[in-house]
Amino acid sequence: MIDKFEVAIIGGGIIGCSIAYYLAKEKMNVAVFEGNQIGMKTTSAAGGMLGAHSECDGDFDAFFPFARSSQFAYSELKEQLNHLCGLDIGYRKGGILKLAFNESDRNELQSILSQPTVKWLDKETLSEMEPHISNKLLGAAYIEEDVNVLPMAVCQAFAKSAQILGATINEYSPVHNIHKKENGFLIETTTGQVEAEYVVVANGVWSTTFFKQLGLDRQLMPVKGECLSVIDEKMTLKHTIFHDHCYIVPRSNGRLVIGATSIENDWNEKVSLDGIETIIAKAKTMLPNIAHLKIDSFWAGLRPQTFDRKPFIGHHPEEEGILFATGHYRNGILLAPATGQMIRDLILKRQVNNEWVEAFKIDRHQPFAIK
Amino acid sequence: MIDKFEVAIIGGGIIGCSIAYYLAKEKMNVAVFEGNQIGMKTTSAAGGMLGAHSECDGDFDAFFPFARSSQFAYSELKEQLNHLCGLDIGYRKGGILKLAFNESDRNELQSILSQPTVKWLDKETLSEMEPHISNKLLGAAYIEEDVNVLPMAVCQAFAKSAQILGATINEYSPVHNIHKKENGFLIETTTGQVEAEYVVVANGVWSTTFFKQLGLDRQLMPVKGECLSVIDEKMTLKHTIFHDHCYIVPRSNGRLVIGATSIENDWNEKVSLDGIETIIAKAKTMLPNIAHLKIDSFWAGLRPQTFDRKPFIGHHPEEEGILFATGHYRNGILLAPATGQMIRDLILKRQVNNEWVEAFKIDRHQPFAIK
Amino acid sequence: MIDKFEVAIIGGGIIGCSIAYYLAKEKMNVAVFEGNQIGMKTTSAAGGMLGAHSECDGDFDAFFPFARSSQFAYSELKEQLNHLCGLDIGYRKGGILKLAFNESDRNELQSILSQPTVKWLDKETLSEMEPHISNKLLGAAYIEEDVNVLPMAVCQAFAKSAQILGATINEYSPVHNIHKKENGFLIETTTGQVEAEYVVVANGVWSTTFFKQLGLDRQLMPVKGECLSVIDEKMTLKHTIFHDHCYIVPRSNGRLVIGATSIENDWNEKVSLDGIETIIAKAKTMLPNIAHLKIDSFWAGLRPQTFDRKPFIGHHPEEEGILFATGHYRNGILLAPATGQMIRDLILKRQVNNEWVEAFKIDRHQPFAIK
Amino acid sequence: MIDKFEVAIIGGGIIGCSIAYYLAKEKMNVAVFEGNQIGMKTTSAAGGMLGAHSECDGDFDAFFPFARSSQFAYSELKEQLNHLCGLDIGYRKGGILKLAFNESDRNELQSILSQPTVKWLDKETLSEMEPHISNKLLGAAYIEEDVNVLPMAVCQAFAKSAQILGATINEYSPVHNIHKKENGFLIETTTGQVEAEYVVVANGVWSTTFFKQLGLDRQLMPVKGECLSVIDEKMTLKHTIFHDHCYIVPRSNGRLVIGATSIENDWNEKVSLDGIETIIAKAKTMLPNIAHLKIDSFWAGLRPQTFDRKPFIGHHPEEEGILFATGHYRNGILLAPATGQMIRDLILKRQVNNEWVEAFKIDRHQPFAIK
Ligand SMILES: Cc1cc2nc3c(=O)[nH]c(=O)nc-3n(C[C@H](O)[C@H](O)[C@H](O)COP(=O)(O)OP(=O)(O)OC[C@H]3O[C@@H](n4cnc5c(N)ncnc54)[C@H](O)[C@@H]3O)c2cc1C
Ligand SMILES: Cc1cc2nc3c(=O)[nH]c(=O)nc-3n(C[C@H](O)[C@H](O)[C@H](O)COP(=O)(O)OP(=O)(O)OC[C@H]3O[C@@H](n4cnc5c(N)ncnc54)[C@H](O)[C@@H]3O)c2cc1C
Ligand SMILES: Cc1cc2nc3c(=O)[nH]c(=O)nc-3n(C[C@H](O)[C@H](O)[C@H](O)COP(=O)(O)OP(=O)(O)OC[C@H]3O[C@@H](n4cnc5c(N)ncnc54)[C@H](O)[C@@H]3O)c2cc1C
Ligand SMILES: Cc1cc2nc3c(=O)[nH]c(=O)nc-3n(C[C@H](O)[C@H](O)[C@H](O)COP(=O)(O)OP(=O)(O)OC[C@H]3O[C@@H](n4cnc5c(N)ncnc54)[C@H](O)[C@@H]3O)c2cc1C
Repeated sequence: MIDKFEVAIIGGGIIGCSIAYYLAKEKMNVAVFEGNQIGMKTTSAAGGMLGAHSECDGDFDAFFPFARSSQFAYSELKEQLNHLCGLDIGYRKGGILKLAFNESDRNELQSILSQPTVKWLDKETLSEMEPHISNKLLGAAYIEEDVNVLPMAVCQAFAKSAQILGATINEYSPVHNIHKKENGFLIETTTGQVEAEYVVVANGVWSTTFFKQLGLDRQLMPVKGECLSVIDEKMTLKHTIFHDHCYIVPRSNGRLVIGATSIENDWNEKVSLDGIETIIAKAKTMLPNIAHLKIDSFWAGLRPQTFDRKPFIGHHPEEEGILFATGHYRNGILLAPATGQMIRDLILKRQVNNEWVEAFKIDRHQPFAIK
Repeated sequence: MIDKFEVAIIGGGIIGCSIAYYLAKEKMNVAVFEGNQIGMKTTSAAGGMLGAHSECDGDFDAFFPFARSSQFAYSELKEQLNHLCGLDIGYRKGGILKLAFNESDRNELQSILSQPTVKWLDKETLSEMEPHISNKLLGAAYIEEDVNVLPMAVCQAFAKSAQILGATINEYSPVHNIHKKENGFLIETTTGQVEAEYVVVANGVWSTTFFKQLGLDRQLMPVKGECLSVIDEKMTLKHTIFHDHCYIVPRSNGRLVIGATSIENDWNEKVSLDGIETIIAKAKTMLPNIAHLKIDSFWAGLRPQTFDRKPFIGHHPEEEGILFATGHYRNGILLAPATGQMIRDLILKRQVNNEWVEAFKIDRHQPFAIK
Repeated sequence: MIDKFEVAIIGGGIIGCSIAYYLAKEKMNVAVFEGNQIGMKTTSAAGGMLGAHSECDGDFDAFFPFARSSQFAYSELKEQLNHLCGLDIGYRKGGILKLAFNESDRNELQSILSQPTVKWLDKETLSEMEPHISNKLLGAAYIEEDVNVLPMAVCQAFAKSAQILGATINEYSPVHNIHKKENGFLIETTTGQVEAEYVVVANGVWSTTFFKQLGLDRQLMPVKGECLSVIDEKMTLKHTIFHDHCYIVPRSNGRLVIGATSIENDWNEKVSLDGIETIIAKAKTMLPNIAHLKIDSFWAGLRPQTFDRKPFIGHHPEEEGILFATGHYRNGILLAPATGQMIRDLILKRQVNNEWVEAFKIDRHQPFAIK
Repeated sequence: MIDKFEVAIIGGGIIGCSIAYYLAKEKMNVAVFEGNQIGMKTTSAAGGMLGAHSECDGDFDAFFPFARSSQFAYSELKEQLNHLCGLDIGYRKGGILKLAFNESDRNELQSILSQPTVKWLDKETLSEMEPHISNKLLGAAYIEEDVNVLPMAVCQAFAKSAQILGATINEYSPVHNIHKKENGFLIETTTGQVEAEYVVVANGVWSTTFFKQLGLDRQLMPVKGECLSVIDEKMTLKHTIFHDHCYIVPRSNGRLVIGATSIENDWNEKVSLDGIETIIAKAKTMLPNIAHLKIDSFWAGLRPQTFDRKPFIGHHPEEEGILFATGHYRNGILLAPATGQMIRDLILKRQVNNEWVEAFKIDRHQPFAIK
């Protein structure tokens, strides 16, 4: 006898777990197959910024509204998930400061500053808000609505809530093959086989191994990010600060998280001496006093990058029963709720914003191939 | 040149840090001297139950009102501390269930059940609330107002808030000697000497080393408690349960904390095989399914026990400038806010409930000496 | 351009790394593809007993001589590997004591005791050798030649030595597919594709996922083993002791390793409360004093079990370029050198003991199928 | 009833444990009182170089012969301790290379190079021995006899062997006071009182707290050293290298240990961002490839420094029953055996080299006081 599910989700990172949660809420019979342990890969490495504004990079058509809807979803989720499963997702206000050391930095912030919810802070205001910040700054763009969460806590809260609502979560169950059958799919895992009507490929950067097998000429490239955290004994920093691809995030456990390098095409998940040196140097530029703080820990994760840095969310072009929810690059934490909702709506054939469907479909036009 | 403080606090556990916080709020110039790292001793080992009812043991004159005032203080502290320092103390409602397997268990609960806020739950109600609990139970006393916190988070929030309010926190600074001087005291630490008008002895079970030196015929006895935590993947348990000196506490990080042994007069802070075996057996009696859960970690701590199991809080009988705040046994987390407030009031010469002064003074009558 | 190797080895546990070492010594161009980190799966969980006698279970035709040749290989390897790569494999003499509490235990030891190198020790001799052992024993079979190593150290020494000799070790590189090509094979990994003339399937219990894909009606079943280690402050135990599937191994880092449960068909690699409870109870039966020792850590691993509990070592029945080296169940540490040598000899077409070829070939007769 | 010992040793670092071992071998009734856990303070932070030559700094009268006798003792200890207690101290040959990047570096090495056992290696020889070393070097002084050990392993082997020989080791037992009595001393620890004929003050940098209490105008200053270790997958480095107060030590567990900063008068035992940055930079100067290696862990320790950087070993000037064995600064691992032997000989009134007595006595002339 073989187990049957309505939906089988491959990957138990924040994306797979979000999908499981939103489907389980609709009483779908859903199962997650996680090769390792829930959330322990890229999700556990993330800073946890919900940077709808700070990450939008000028894409106000699809990315920005999608990201904002996800951000809004979080403000409800924090209560809902806590109520359901008892976990606390560490939702924390404060906003993000994008720093400008000079006019060129400031120019780069123009597009963000044009948004109504973002404001410019001059040097004085800034140093009142954050007295320990570098005194070489011109000012900063203050994005009050870009808040933080604890990524692992969100992921575990999704997984546990999904389970409480009836979903099955299988850890240590890597999926090896997806076979088409008459009415659905046969999924082969190390631990056995199951059948499902729908399959969602949501295993982060490792999704790339299924693309060819499923007849798709697409690829994900890992962009490794290395981080470290320090113990902030006093209160050196209250807001997340950001400059030159580096950030410092204050956590509600008293740690400052410093991130992150961007090393393309490196599958090794350990932290190099070089990486650590780089981010210490950048952190000191923003917050000189950080040099005296004491190290707590270090880690790395692999961001799943697509050719245009936007995720692949939607149906397989020829095989409706297969869906993708992957390639979230730097923004998987931010986008997890909206991704879960979109996959739910696609499976339940509810209405989905067409801009998003087009922008995120896996067979959208790719200008040139990665080699 | 020697540093001078109004108040020097020996010990940076939850008690010392609470005192520092309440004094710093009054703009006192206060310093904590911690031999190791903030909170890493007994405080870090605690379950975090605020068991004003469940621990009161019939003492409605002093312990219970003192404990209740402390419990109330927590409901305000969670916002105040978060606002001030950004840390989250993990305050979590849900209450405590004291289980009765038979009539004799039930009889022991009579005194608690006589309290207006505590109610009896029969077997059916109980198994609806907690479906995985043992089916051999008669019922349970439900103490809804006995909530939980994360002990380390509270301690760090006190310490960090105190620092932000101007207090000095010295880690790795064990105090060796307290010398009387003309206008106060000279405190010798490994890292140097300081002067203070008031000295508060708040170094948990290690306070015992100062008693003789300060001319007091008192002692503290360590009662070692060993614990372990498991990963609760689904939601096996929602409320803290308690029976036969053992408890299981659900944490907002998805862990169940199982505690604790009581080994008298053992100063060794490591966990023995015996200890682990004992608490696993007890936990299975209460919650049979727990046997299948996976272990997360294990640890031990030393409860500071006085001859009558009530803390020593108050002035030295002959030396007004020396105060004690120690011997909190099983209830230091619960009693930390009230202890901090009482020491503050004693130093600022504000009014203090006389029952408490009498019940907790270090020179109260000891019926027989511990040998 | 695609990388080409003479031999591609799937799996970087002790088996894969041993093969890489023996081939690299012959100047073969070899690469290991490890999905995770070298040795971190079953290998890291092992006790490290080289139990040629204690594990032979009456099979004196193939298993025993194969195991003995492996044991002998270790006595040379310890110097060779250290010289080459600087690592110390923790080779430690002392032997294994198989305990008999009663006549029935003693009868079970008859077959082992019939071997010339094994001797019976009576109660008195035993309690002189191991004063803290249970006083309820009849005696023990003393297998002096069954020594210990540190499994992770061996595995890393094989890997590092192989690298120094020219082999390529790829971590974080799971293999997904093996395709036949004209002159060899195409191996697909997450991190790209490579070509090889020979492919060795050596990925422990996860080898099972390749069997069907390669047209073989075989399976491996995980048998999970849970362990813990304690700190032996004095010298409670000098020799490895063994009874009723449980053992206690003294390590040269001052730890006693206690193992292990045998949970069939469980792919989850975490330790359960039940498991811990079971092995503590068994350890106390053998060595009552162990109850007071302090816990150091705990872990679990998955033994790869075949239908007859002997490994699969040899060519694919139809495809000479594919070889298997897997299914080493409880004895992968013991058998690693002999397995590496046998695969080397098969690839280099040197002579190999025919009894071994027949006993370990993957298409040997399986009396009934596992379902 | 109070416990009585012939010798009470305060401190269970490598120095205290060595003394316990050498006294226990002479059947003395000895007890160690360790405030925390054996070896977990400065000892566990050390690199483990036995740098008799490289550290001697021109002192050929006392330091050098003392250090050499200690180094020789190690070559026997490795067998003796292993035989007695089963632990392996990680003794590893290979020697130390003191690098010269320019003529000025080379001049500094003259004094070392004048020693018969030390030789100069030119650039070519050096790059054959260590192909990955910086190509900007002139050459190096090769001190073949300066070998390595694993400091924690040595310390635990001393402790365990001492126990097996009859010594008592008390962990979690800080000593607070030493009182003179009629025939010996009363030692107050947290865990109770004991009597002893001799007291040895061997608690590393914390010994400083007893000096004043014992009427001595001496002080120890902590010199904090921060380290990190990386995983050396291939064999990037075979010998210990040393330059500009920084070193890289290859360990037999495949790690390279990089050390160390020297921060005076800092009692905090955690690692700062600054410290890490500094040693990474220095390590890259010596071994550029190290930049790509992956971090394993980081830690810090406090070196106990005396006014002239030589240890205090010997009797209290007025109180024969009190001895000191402390202030070993950068060389406590190297000097542990010789220190243990010297204290043994002083207590047993055997003959001791008079140069050493004079050079290391605590009341030797201090040219100017540290303030
Ligand atoms: C340093 C760093 C900082 C970041 N900061 C932020 C941030 O501040 N905000 C933000 O929004 N995003 C951030 N990100 C990005 C974010 O972490 C990712 O976009 C997100 O975690 C992707 O989630 P995922 O579930 O797709 O992938 P993962 O978390 O990697 O989950 C995929 C899962 O699939 C499993 N798996 C793989 N193969 C298989 C298989 N064959 N079968 C079954 N299971 C399989 C894996 O074990 C894994 O658990 C950051 C990333 C990094 C590295
Ligand atoms: C297993 C267990 C479970 C528990 N559960 C609960 C619970 O659920 N609810 C509850 O209310 N209570 C609980 N307790 C009790 C509670 O943990 C203690 O009462 C409380 O932590 C005592 O706090 P403290 O600050 O006095 O001691 P500590 O936390 O031990 O702090 C004392 C500090 O003093 C420092 N110190 C020692 N000597 C010196 C010196 N000479 N100089 C400077 N510093 C020094 C130490 O390093 C330490 O940090 C539990 C205890 C245990 C062991
Ligand atoms: C508790 C316990 C105690 C034991 N004690 C002993 C003992 O005392 N003596 C003894 O001889 N044996 C002992 N064993 C057995 C021994 O540990 C195993 O037989 C041995 O480790 C098997 O080695 P392996 O290399 O085949 O497997 P593993 O060590 O599991 O290595 C397989 C490797 O393959 C990798 N991998 C998996 N899939 C892929 C893929 N698709 N692509 C690339 N890589 C992949 C994995 O990540 C893993 O690293 C014990 C086992 C256990 C669990
Ligand atoms: C980064 C670094 C690298 C080094 N590298 C080397 C090297 O390569 N070679 C070398 O020879 N040396 C090296 N050293 C120096 C060496 O580590 C020290 O000299 C040595 O460890 C000192 O040993 P100890 O036993 O005196 O001190 P410790 O190891 O500090 O032991 C003292 C013990 O006393 C205990 N204690 C303190 N107070 C009390 C009390 N009141 N009662 C009871 N117990 C107490 C402490 O808990 C501690 O365990 C290095 C040091 C550092 C920091």
